[in-house]
Amino acid sequence: QSNVTIYGIADMSINHFSGSNGGLQENNSVTRLDSNAGNNFAGSRLGFKGREDLGGGLSADFKLEMGIQMDTGRSEQGGRLFGRAANIGLNTGYGSLHLGRQDTPAFDLLNSSDPMGVGLAGTTANIHIGNKSAFPVGQPGAAPQQGWIGIGAIRANNSIRYDTPNFNGFSASVLYGMGEVASSSNGNLGIVGLNYKSQAMTIGYVHIDDNSAGVVTAQTADFKQKSDALAFTYDFKIAKLYTLAATKKADSAGIEDKANYYLLGMNAPITSRDQIMLSWNRSAGRNSNANSADQFSIGYSHALSKRTILYTSFSKILNKGNASFGIDGYDGHDGANFDYSRLFNAGILHSF
Amino acid sequence: QSNVTIYGIADMSINHFSGSNGGLQENNSVTRLDSNAGNNFAGSRLGFKGREDLGGGLSADFKLEMGIQMDTGRSEQGGRLFGRAANIGLNTGYGSLHLGRQDTPAFDLLNSSDPMGVGLAGTTANIHIGNKSAFPVGQPGAAPQQGWIGIGAIRANNSIRYDTPNFNGFSASVLYGMGEVASSSNGNLGIVGLNYKSQAMTIGYVHIDDNSAGVVTAQTADFKQKSDALAFTYDFKIAKLYTLAATKKADSAGIEDKANYYLLGMNAPITSRDQIMLSWNRSAGRNSNANSADQFSIGYSHALSKRTILYTSFSKILNKGNASFGIDGYDGHDGANFDYSRLFNAGILHSF
Amino acid sequence: QSNVTIYGIADMSINHFSGSNGGLQENNSVTRLDSNAGNNFAGSRLGFKGREDLGGGLSADFKLEMGIQMDTGRSEQGGRLFGRAANIGLNTGYGSLHLGRQDTPAFDLLNSSDPMGVGLAGTTANIHIGNKSAFPVGQPGAAPQQGWIGIGAIRANNSIRYDTPNFNGFSASVLYGMGEVASSSNGNLGIVGLNYKSQAMTIGYVHIDDNSAGVVTAQTADFKQKSDALAFTYDFKIAKLYTLAATKKADSAGIEDKANYYLLGMNAPITSRDQIMLSWNRSAGRNSNANSADQFSIGYSHALSKRTILYTSFSKILNKGNASFGIDGYDGHDGANFDYSRLFNAGILHSF
Repeated sequence: QSNVTIYGIADMSINHFSGSNGGLQENNSVTRLDSNAGNNFAGSRLGFKGREDLGGGLSADFKLEMGIQMDTGRSEQGGRLFGRAANIGLNTGYGSLHLGRQDTPAFDLLNSSDPMGVGLAGTTANIHIGNKSAFPVGQPGAAPQQGWIGIGAIRANNSIRYDTPNFNGFSASVLYGMGEVASSSNGNLGIVGLNYKSQAMTIGYVHIDDNSAGVVTAQTADFKQKSDALAFTYDFKIAKLYTLAATKKADSAGIEDKANYYLLGMNAPITSRDQIMLSWNRSAGRNSNANSADQFSIGYSHALSKRTILYTSFSKILNKGNASFGIDGYDGHDGANFDYSRLFNAGILHSF
Repeated sequence: QSNVTIYGIADMSINHFSGSNGGLQENNSVTRLDSNAGNNFAGSRLGFKGREDLGGGLSADFKLEMGIQMDTGRSEQGGRLFGRAANIGLNTGYGSLHLGRQDTPAFDLLNSSDPMGVGLAGTTANIHIGNKSAFPVGQPGAAPQQGWIGIGAIRANNSIRYDTPNFNGFSASVLYGMGEVASSSNGNLGIVGLNYKSQAMTIGYVHIDDNSAGVVTAQTADFKQKSDALAFTYDFKIAKLYTLAATKKADSAGIEDKANYYLLGMNAPITSRDQIMLSWNRSAGRNSNANSADQFSIGYSHALSKRTILYTSFSKILNKGNASFGIDGYDGHDGANFDYSRLFNAGILHSF
Repeated sequence: QSNVTIYGIADMSINHFSGSNGGLQENNSVTRLDSNAGNNFAGSRLGFKGREDLGGGLSADFKLEMGIQMDTGRSEQGGRLFGRAANIGLNTGYGSLHLGRQDTPAFDLLNSSDPMGVGLAGTTANIHIGNKSAFPVGQPGAAPQQGWIGIGAIRANNSIRYDTPNFNGFSASVLYGMGEVASSSNGNLGIVGLNYKSQAMTIGYVHIDDNSAGVVTAQTADFKQKSDALAFTYDFKIAKLYTLAATKKADSAGIEDKANYYLLGMNAPITSRDQIMLSWNRSAGRNSNANSADQFSIGYSHALSKRTILYTSFSKILNKGNASFGIDGYDGHDGANFDYSRLFNAGILHSF
């Protein structure tokens, strides 16, 4: 049917992980064939989208995007059929309005600030989003430092997003995610993003006000987190520079968890088909039990075509104090402090 | 591939619900962004279908249709991949035979008798199908009155459906759903439908013999329900009139639950793009503990194009006696009697 | 999008099963409308695939294939979204490499050795793969004899498969499935296949080294199974002959389970549209508690077109000793010995 465009990405890699937390997983290592929205080059997906021109500058669109674990055939995003996107929108000269499950302006900023594109072994997500599955985002206490973007602030359910038109390079986005709990602000999510883009430069700012606890437990029932992030990229042609600094303040039952986050990265074209990517990501606690983590990453890609890419990448995370950041999908937290984790992978991405 | 047509609907609305049952949900209200096969204009879906001409008036067809919660990206219909339809058929000059999961003639009658199209805040489903998730259909006792169409009689699994050709406006349909329980008629479902259609008028009749308990519990293990419904619509051009009357008799472990059901509605074109819809639905118990519920509904739609529609609707349900009808997805039954529930919504539907 | 081909099969049948195991299911029978990858003509599916020519004899491809229960709209293969296939590959002049979830060379051999195409009432899978859902493959003890192909060796997760080019009819395949358990070979799967194909004849050999227990229990935690199979087919034009012999040795906690497997079958074109299929499958234990099972099967298909086929089939399984083979999806094991099981079905297959 001409109304629907089918598109997608198939991405698989061979991953070798090793890590230690002085406990259950001391000097542990495992080799896996993986298809992971976290540390492959891109999350595998199958999407259906369309746009209808309604005349007078008005158009309607929709997007339904499955996230796929290619290694098992299962759905990503917790078994959701369309875990990556399910939304409908109206686009006018005064901006765009989209309703449903969709990427947030916070994710967009992280995505455009990561030379790895929130992918590969050294995805910024490991530090800036944090250990998504193992812990509630921002949980204070034993594992105090998680990311400034909560798990519900990557893609938001029940959300309304408005994007302004582009005014000479300036644009803004607002997203409101409804918690949908009667007589409560639990689960509500508000995000504002501001962007400037010139030919070589981008500047982005985002503010998150997140009342969703990610994984809701008694500890996190009244969890609240506020974050601010500022990002700057510049394309020097021989290389593109990526920087981001963020700060968050989480409050759960009166216990505060404060931390700063940093990203410094670059990617550089070596040939018209080859590219190298480097990044350093850091989380530094501001609590009394200050803790920090550093992630050092390198990636390399070789394009067989515009649609098919071979890649390899390596990353190492070092935790200090009680920090317990890890590689997505290989976390292996056992309650003990995490010393380090390393991931090497090599894979192939095919987009269609 | 030319053999497959992809089609679908994306529909999201902002819903405001308020209701009271003198118990847990007294004066409760909640605002949600919703995508619900129940009270949106239409259930969001993605479908794949095709038809092959086999020559000599014979053709084969198939239909695979996903139901989608656009607000979360999850499947509708209890996590089924193709929850709306999964069937294969043969069409001949002597009629059509379809096997699989498919709409029943009972649903077809309800659908063509509802000025809201079994959608919007005031969907007839709230009264005529009843509280689908909270209770087994037709459960006698505390909440005696549910609809004349059981939950398994909307779309039937394991079913064979035969539709006659159209004879001068007359047609008939028979559906048999297999319970597939060894040495038992539990879960068996039989439906017969008769229809007449002239240019302005439709008359429809359906009989249901339903041995499926919807949600099977000890109470409903030997549940049996028989229903008859008669519908009449007439298009006066300035408005179309919709009427339906139904009666059911449910029997569970010897306890009978008898009720009548009524629908009176109309929709009227205001402009070529705008339409108003009104309906009144009623359930009236015939047991000793007689109970009744009334639903008053209004809807309005504005077509931006043939494929994209803005809409708004409002509905109020009033329960008397032990009746406990409610708004689909907002039921909130707590065992106490339900006083009233109201839903207002405004949304957008895009078909593709 | 021109990059994606959509394809699939819709197949439904009416099945009548009867069986007895002298216990819970004595003389039991049930009639069902079914859509089963096991005993329909083919497993219902919806697939998305594509191939990109990368120049110089190089190409990339992907395949995402859903398995569907048409009778309920649910996913096959345990709720996987793409349960039949999810893989990405590179094809060169030196062969093809595919990563992900994919058919194994063992399944390919069985598939090409079965006149029923691993389908219909008398699918070879009932004997050569064994009772897939009820028991761990190769479990010794009460139900000693399962197939020589373990459940994880039909389609392998986390797998790398290499296929050589065709050298004058000769080709080979190697598949390695990763168990992905740290510091353990549990779940690892290795398969080697060799094939020769002339105009009329095929010869195939496969070796399986399977450390995956299928359903993992304490009994099967260190399960290991090794199998060898040799197949030969010859097309005499008036009929095609199918033969296969296999042997397996399973070891679980020191208890060995050894068995041989045989297949003898044929299919013959009766007209250009009609075909008859016959097969005999046998499993014979080699343990002290020797047991055996025989399956006798017949099938008939009538093509309405190249894409749409009507079919009917019948099969009977007879168990001796402690053998407990049964019809897929109708197993009904209750721990007692299984005497016999019979399945008759008639259905329609439509491919698109």
